[in-house]
Amino acid sequence: MEKLSGHITIAAVGKLKSLQYRFIQDDYLKRLQRYTKAELVEVKDVVGKSVPDQVAVEREGQHLLKATANVNRRFALVSTGRQPDSLELADFVRNQIGLYGRIAFLVGGPLGLSEEVLQHCEEMISLSRLTFTHELARLILLEQLYRAGTIIAGESYHK
Amino acid sequence: MEKLSGHITIAAVGKLKSLQYRFIQDDYLKRLQRYTKAELVEVKDVVGKSVPDQVAVEREGQHLLKATANVNRRFALVSTGRQPDSLELADFVRNQIGLYGRIAFLVGGPLGLSEEVLQHCEEMISLSRLTFTHELARLILLEQLYRAGTIIAGESYHK
Repeated sequence: MEKLSGHITIAAVGKLKSLQYRFIQDDYLKRLQRYTKAELVEVKDVVGKSVPDQVAVEREGQHLLKATANVNRRFALVSTGRQPDSLELADFVRNQIGLYGRIAFLVGGPLGLSEEVLQHCEEMISLSRLTFTHELARLILLEQLYRAGTIIAGESYHK
Repeated sequence: MEKLSGHITIAAVGKLKSLQYRFIQDDYLKRLQRYTKAELVEVKDVVGKSVPDQVAVEREGQHLLKATANVNRRFALVSTGRQPDSLELADFVRNQIGLYGRIAFLVGGPLGLSEEVLQHCEEMISLSRLTFTHELARLILLEQLYRAGTIIAGESYHK
């Protein structure tokens, strides 16, 4: 099995409150870690903490940037971004890790990502034209990164 | 709150094995039922029951068609289908229920949907260019149908 030599950080806003989502998320993270070093960093959410949304999303963005200060390339999850299929995403991950080593995917909370975060990201990636809850977006991203690992390793994986 | 007068059947192949997925699925179904009559029908999966895949997918398809014999319009979930955004999907659901009353969304198992099923569907709908596990596809569909309910009712809902 080809284990990728790089490192993937998934930086996301807030802890998942639902036990069920957490379980699925942690399971996919563990499975992803068979293929590459990977970590999930859940930064503090600010939304709803009696500050205006604009302030909240900016502070959350600063947390995300700080949590990924040691990576070489950041990619933002945004529904209007470029939408790869699963094979293209696997190629993308392999290439980026090959070229840059440490890469990160940034996932916003209910308020999305701040302008400052987008300016610090090399590319915007979309999982779908659909708007997902940030909880579901996180599961989908982790599942797709795990899937990318299986694709890069040439393994079969169920649909 | 506007409650839609029609009925949505989600017909899917197989029972979700994971308790966590089941919990999330059932939760979204209950929430969807605030907005419209809706039911989830899980038909028997045939995959892996020592028949060739081609036979399995055909039998599963026949189960799906039987389970939706009383609907007026069927829509197949296929990654290569037309990909609406969440607002377009909400419009689509409202229009189809308004015109046809009983509608159904068909979700395949790991083998996908048979040719026969596709021929009996009015349209192919895609959630994403990404290939999802059928478990995740089911959660996403239910979440989006619930989201459509909130959009049609003019309610706000988190991202």
